[in-house]
Amino acid sequence: MSNGKIPVIIDCDPGIDDAVALALAFGCGKLDVLGVTTVAGNTTGENTHRNARKFLSFIGADVEVARGADKPILRPLVTAPQVHGETGLGGLGEPGDEDPDASGRSAFDLITDTLLNHPEKVTLVPVGPLTNLAIALLAKPEIKRKIEKIVLMGGAALEGNRTPAAEFNIYVDPEAARIVFESGVPITMIGLDVTHKALIYPDEIEALRRFGRIGRTVAELMDFYGNHYRKRFEGNPIHDALAVAAVFEPDIVSTRHLSVCVETSAEFTLGRTVVDFRGVTGREPNCHVALGVDRERFIELIFNAVKYLEQMAQ
Amino acid sequence: MSNGKIPVIIDCDPGIDDAVALALAFGCGKLDVLGVTTVAGNTTGENTHRNARKFLSFIGADVEVARGADKPILRPLVTAPQVHGETGLGGLGEPGDEDPDASGRSAFDLITDTLLNHPEKVTLVPVGPLTNLAIALLAKPEIKRKIEKIVLMGGAALEGNRTPAAEFNIYVDPEAARIVFESGVPITMIGLDVTHKALIYPDEIEALRRFGRIGRTVAELMDFYGNHYRKRFEGNPIHDALAVAAVFEPDIVSTRHLSVCVETSAEFTLGRTVVDFRGVTGREPNCHVALGVDRERFIELIFNAVKYLEQMAQ
Amino acid sequence: MSNGKIPVIIDCDPGIDDAVALALAFGCGKLDVLGVTTVAGNTTGENTHRNARKFLSFIGADVEVARGADKPILRPLVTAPQVHGETGLGGLGEPGDEDPDASGRSAFDLITDTLLNHPEKVTLVPVGPLTNLAIALLAKPEIKRKIEKIVLMGGAALEGNRTPAAEFNIYVDPEAARIVFESGVPITMIGLDVTHKALIYPDEIEALRRFGRIGRTVAELMDFYGNHYRKRFEGNPIHDALAVAAVFEPDIVSTRHLSVCVETSAEFTLGRTVVDFRGVTGREPNCHVALGVDRERFIELIFNAVKYLEQMAQ
Amino acid sequence: MSNGKIPVIIDCDPGIDDAVALALAFGCGKLDVLGVTTVAGNTTGENTHRNARKFLSFIGADVEVARGADKPILRPLVTAPQVHGETGLGGLGEPGDEDPDASGRSAFDLITDTLLNHPEKVTLVPVGPLTNLAIALLAKPEIKRKIEKIVLMGGAALEGNRTPAAEFNIYVDPEAARIVFESGVPITMIGLDVTHKALIYPDEIEALRRFGRIGRTVAELMDFYGNHYRKRFEGNPIHDALAVAAVFEPDIVSTRHLSVCVETSAEFTLGRTVVDFRGVTGREPNCHVALGVDRERFIELIFNAVKYLEQMAQ
Repeated sequence: MSNGKIPVIIDCDPGIDDAVALALAFGCGKLDVLGVTTVAGNTTGENTHRNARKFLSFIGADVEVARGADKPILRPLVTAPQVHGETGLGGLGEPGDEDPDASGRSAFDLITDTLLNHPEKVTLVPVGPLTNLAIALLAKPEIKRKIEKIVLMGGAALEGNRTPAAEFNIYVDPEAARIVFESGVPITMIGLDVTHKALIYPDEIEALRRFGRIGRTVAELMDFYGNHYRKRFEGNPIHDALAVAAVFEPDIVSTRHLSVCVETSAEFTLGRTVVDFRGVTGREPNCHVALGVDRERFIELIFNAVKYLEQMAQ
Repeated sequence: MSNGKIPVIIDCDPGIDDAVALALAFGCGKLDVLGVTTVAGNTTGENTHRNARKFLSFIGADVEVARGADKPILRPLVTAPQVHGETGLGGLGEPGDEDPDASGRSAFDLITDTLLNHPEKVTLVPVGPLTNLAIALLAKPEIKRKIEKIVLMGGAALEGNRTPAAEFNIYVDPEAARIVFESGVPITMIGLDVTHKALIYPDEIEALRRFGRIGRTVAELMDFYGNHYRKRFEGNPIHDALAVAAVFEPDIVSTRHLSVCVETSAEFTLGRTVVDFRGVTGREPNCHVALGVDRERFIELIFNAVKYLEQMAQ
Repeated sequence: MSNGKIPVIIDCDPGIDDAVALALAFGCGKLDVLGVTTVAGNTTGENTHRNARKFLSFIGADVEVARGADKPILRPLVTAPQVHGETGLGGLGEPGDEDPDASGRSAFDLITDTLLNHPEKVTLVPVGPLTNLAIALLAKPEIKRKIEKIVLMGGAALEGNRTPAAEFNIYVDPEAARIVFESGVPITMIGLDVTHKALIYPDEIEALRRFGRIGRTVAELMDFYGNHYRKRFEGNPIHDALAVAAVFEPDIVSTRHLSVCVETSAEFTLGRTVVDFRGVTGREPNCHVALGVDRERFIELIFNAVKYLEQMAQ
Repeated sequence: MSNGKIPVIIDCDPGIDDAVALALAFGCGKLDVLGVTTVAGNTTGENTHRNARKFLSFIGADVEVARGADKPILRPLVTAPQVHGETGLGGLGEPGDEDPDASGRSAFDLITDTLLNHPEKVTLVPVGPLTNLAIALLAKPEIKRKIEKIVLMGGAALEGNRTPAAEFNIYVDPEAARIVFESGVPITMIGLDVTHKALIYPDEIEALRRFGRIGRTVAELMDFYGNHYRKRFEGNPIHDALAVAAVFEPDIVSTRHLSVCVETSAEFTLGRTVVDFRGVTGREPNCHVALGVDRERFIELIFNAVKYLEQMAQ
C-alpha cells in the first residue's frame, strides 16, 4: 500500500513554514501522506484550515484535510500575526473561492481512525501546537502502539523565540506538549536549536523564485517571512519543513537521546522544553533532541521537492 | 424510550459513596441510566471499574460499565485509601470471581457515542475526578449540544477536604475540572458545602441495616466510611449520592448561579473551586453552586431506593 | 514607663479604616503608641505617609510617623482607589500645607530600634500589607524575642474581598505575609471573617456625626467608605480598627488556634490565607484566627475613643 | 584610604570555590576588602561562617567576617553536600578550635553600615545565594547610591547545574535574586556560561600543589571538587573566583548588556535566569552577562595570588 513510502500524518497550522513543509512532504516522493490535520496556532483554526486546503490545492496535492482544535487544551489561543501575517500565509492567506470544507471528519477522527486502521505503524509529524495529538492520546491511548514515532517541530534546548525561554508551538499549548512528551511514544524534537541553523539565504530564495509557479510562490512566502527574520538572522529559518525532512532523511539532523520536560506553570518560562544534557535530574531519556543539521542538504531537498511539484503540475 | 425518565450517564470512581450513588440511581425509579463509566480517583482505574461492576451486579442493575482514564490529564494519580480502603469499597472491594470486562467500549466511546446517538439531551452525573468528561469535551466538542446539563459532585465554595482549600475530586484532576467548568455547558456543583450538611446519622444507618441484603451492605459501607468521618462529623456524608438525588429532585438543594474558576497552578490551593459570591471578578456565572440542602428528604430518598432495590431483587 | 498601657507600634496605610484605627488607638486610653509607620497599600507610600501625618495631627496625636516600603517585596504595588479614593482618605486625603516629613527615621529603623531598645516586649499592629514587618524580620531576626505578638488586620478564612479568595492586605504582598506567618511570632489574625461582621450601621454613623469635629470627620470618612460597601453590606466594615480593639480588649473577638499558610504562587488564589480548620494538613497551629466578634462592644469602643479625642482637643 | 585599591565587600558561602575566591581577593593586591559576609547556601549558615573564618585565618587575611542569613527569604534551605562535602570545605571543613564568632555585627549591619559610611562607592561581590544583599536592599534602599556595582557569581544564560534550567546560587533563593536583579543597581553576572569555560586542568592543579602550604591546600580543595566535576568536565570550574577576578580585571570576561529575569514560580525552571538575547521581551537591559572568558589569564591570576599569599605568610 505504501509502496515503500513512509506513512505519515502531518498536523500543521499554516503558517508560512508549514506551507513549505507541506510542499516538501508532497514533493519529496518518500512519504505516503495519509492525511493532513490542522490546528489553531500561527493563526486561528479557521485560517489554518483554509490555508492548508488552499496551499495543498495550489501544489496539486490530493489529500484529506481535517480541521482540529480551535484553541489549546487549557489556555486562550495566542497567535503570531507579526510573523505569518494576519491570515497566516502572508499575502496569500486571504479567504478566496475555495470550496467549503468537504471533509466531515474532524482532525481527531482522522488521526485516530487512520492510526487504528492503517496496516502499518504511522509516523506523526506535528509542526504546530500539539493540541490535536495530545487530545488523541488522551481519548484513545490505544493509538500509541500504532504510532511509529512523532517527529515534531517545536521546543528549544537553548534559546526560545516567542519568549527567551520558549519556542512558539510549545508556548501556545504547553499542557498538550507535556502530555505528548510524557506519552512514552518515541519523539524526535526538531527545535530552534537546529531550525535556526538551517536557514535559507537570500540568493537561494532568488534561485527558488526562478523555478516556476510554485517556486515563485514559495519565494514570496520567504520574502514575507524575511520581514520578521532578517532583523535577527542572515537568512530565514523554515522550521516546519525541517521536521518533514527529518522523517524521510533522518541523518539530516544529529540528535541526542535526553530527558525533556515541559514547563507548564511559570511566569517567565512557560512552555520551556527543559533538556537535561548532563543527567542532573535522574529522569530517563524520552526524546531524541536534534542539535546539529546539514543545512546545505536541507536546502537541496527543498529545491528538489519544488522542482518535482512543478513537473507534476504540468 | 425514556418513559418519562431522565436519561443520564453516571461517571464514577467507586468508592463508598459512589456505590450508594449507584444504588440511588437504580433504585429511585426516575432515571434512565444509559451507561456507567469509571475513572481513576478514590482508587486505581482497575479497582474502580471492578468495584462498579461488582456493586451493580450485586444490586441487580443491568447496564454497560465502561472503563475510562487511569490517570488525570496532566498529573500522577492521587487516591484516597484512608477513606475508601485499599481497594476502594472498604472490605467489599476485594477482587472476586466477577467476569472479565465484557464491554469492548471505553468510557470515552460510551460517553460520546451515547450522547451523539441518543434522541434526547442527556444529563451527565460525574461523581469522581472529571477526567473522562474533560477528554470527551476536548475530543468531541460537538457533544456539548447533546448534554442537558452536568450535575457533578465536587468542589467546595468554603472548606475543602483533601486540603483546606480543595475537595478531593477537583484536587485529583484540576485541569480536567477547569476544562469542564470553562466548557459553557450548564453545571450544577454539588460540593462539600452541601454534602457535609447532608449527613446520615448512626440511627439511620442502623435502620438501613435492618432492611435486608442491600440495606445491610450499604450500612456496612457506611460503617467503613465512619472510621474516617466520625472524627470530624456526627454522621457520614454520602457525597456522590447527593449529586444523583439533585438530578431527579433538583429542589433538594438550593443553589446560586455564580462564577466558579478552578485553580490549577498553586502551592497550597491547587484544585480550589474559587466561587465569586459578591461579583468581585466581573466574570459571568458559569455554575449553579449548591449551598443549602434538605437532609431529611435526602435520607428518605436513599431509604426508598434501597427498599425498591430489595423488592426488585426478590 | 508604659503606665500600665500596652506598648504598641501601629503599621498602617491610611486608608479610611486605618484612620479610624488610629483614632481608636489614641482615644482608647489603653495603648502606649511608641510609633506609627506607614506602608504602600491602599494608596501609594507617599499618600499613606502624608495621610497618617495629617490625620494624627488632626486628632491631636503626638507621635513619630515613619515612612516605610513604597512597594511590596517582590511585586508591583496594587492599590484600592475605588475603596479609599485616589489619595487614600476620601476627600480628606488631598495634599495640604502639612510640614514635610520631619522624621529622619525610616519605618524599618523605627520598628527595629524601638523593639530592640524598649524595656518591654512590644505588640505590633500591622493593618496594611505586611511589607515593613517582613523586611524587619528578615534583616533583624533578633527582634522576634522583643515582639509580644502581632495583631494584624488581614486575611480571610472564608471569603476574600480583593478577589474571591484573597483579602486585600495579604493579596498586595503575599510574600511578606508568608514571611510573617512563618516567623514563629504569635499572631492574631483579624480577617474579613470578623471585620465583615463588625459593621457600623447608618444610624450609628449619624450618631458619630453629632459628636463634634472629630466625630463629624470620622462620619464623613464612613460616608465615603459607604459608597463602596453599601452595595454589598448593610453597614460599613471598619477593618483596621478592629485589630486595634483586639489588642487592648482581646475578648472582643473569639479565636481558634490554627495552621494558616499564605498562597504566593497561584492564578486565582494568590494571597489566600489557607486556614486548616480540621487539621488535614498536619501542620502546627501558627495563628489565632478571629472568627467571632462582639459588634456592639466594638462600636461602643469607637464612640468612646472619639468622645475622648474630642475632649482632649478642647 | 583605598590606596588605589577597589573597595569591595565579599558575600560568600564557603564552599570550595568560595575559598579560592577569598584567596584571590586577598592575594591579588588590587582589592580593599572592607568585610566578608557569609550566607547559607553550599552548606548551613553555621558552616559557611566557620569555614570563612577558618580559611581566612589560614591564608592570613585580617578582616571582619559577619554572619548573615541562615535560610533563603521565602524557602527552606537547599545545600550541596555532594559538591562541597558535608561541612562545605571538603575534608577541611570540620569544626576545629577556631575562636567563637568575635564579630558582634550581622552581615546585614556590616553591609549597610559599610556602604553608608565608606567615603567611596563600594563594589559588592556576592558569590552565594543573594539573600543577604536582597535583605539589605529591602531594608535600606538608600544603600543603592553607595553601590558601585554588583559583580555576582550565579545564573546561567544557557545551561544550569542544580537543575537543567537553574544555577545553584539562584535556585537556592530565587526571590532574593529577583529582588537584586530588579533593584536597578548595575550588575555583572558571572554565570555558568563562563565559569564552565574557565576550568583549571589537572596539570595546573599539580603545579599549584608544589607552591607551598597554601597552594597545597587549594590543590586539595580542587581534588575534592574534582570528585564531582570530573564526571562531566575535563577540569574543575572555580566559579566564585572568576567573579572576584572580574572585579579587578573586568576584561577577563566579555559581556553583553541584556535583560535578565529570574523565574520564581515554576515546576522545572525555578531559579532560571531568563536572558533575552534577541530583545523579544521589550524589557530594558539590566545586567552585563558574561559570555566569554580568558581562561589562561584567570588561572594565571590564581597562581599569582597563591604565590603572593605564600610570601606574605612567611
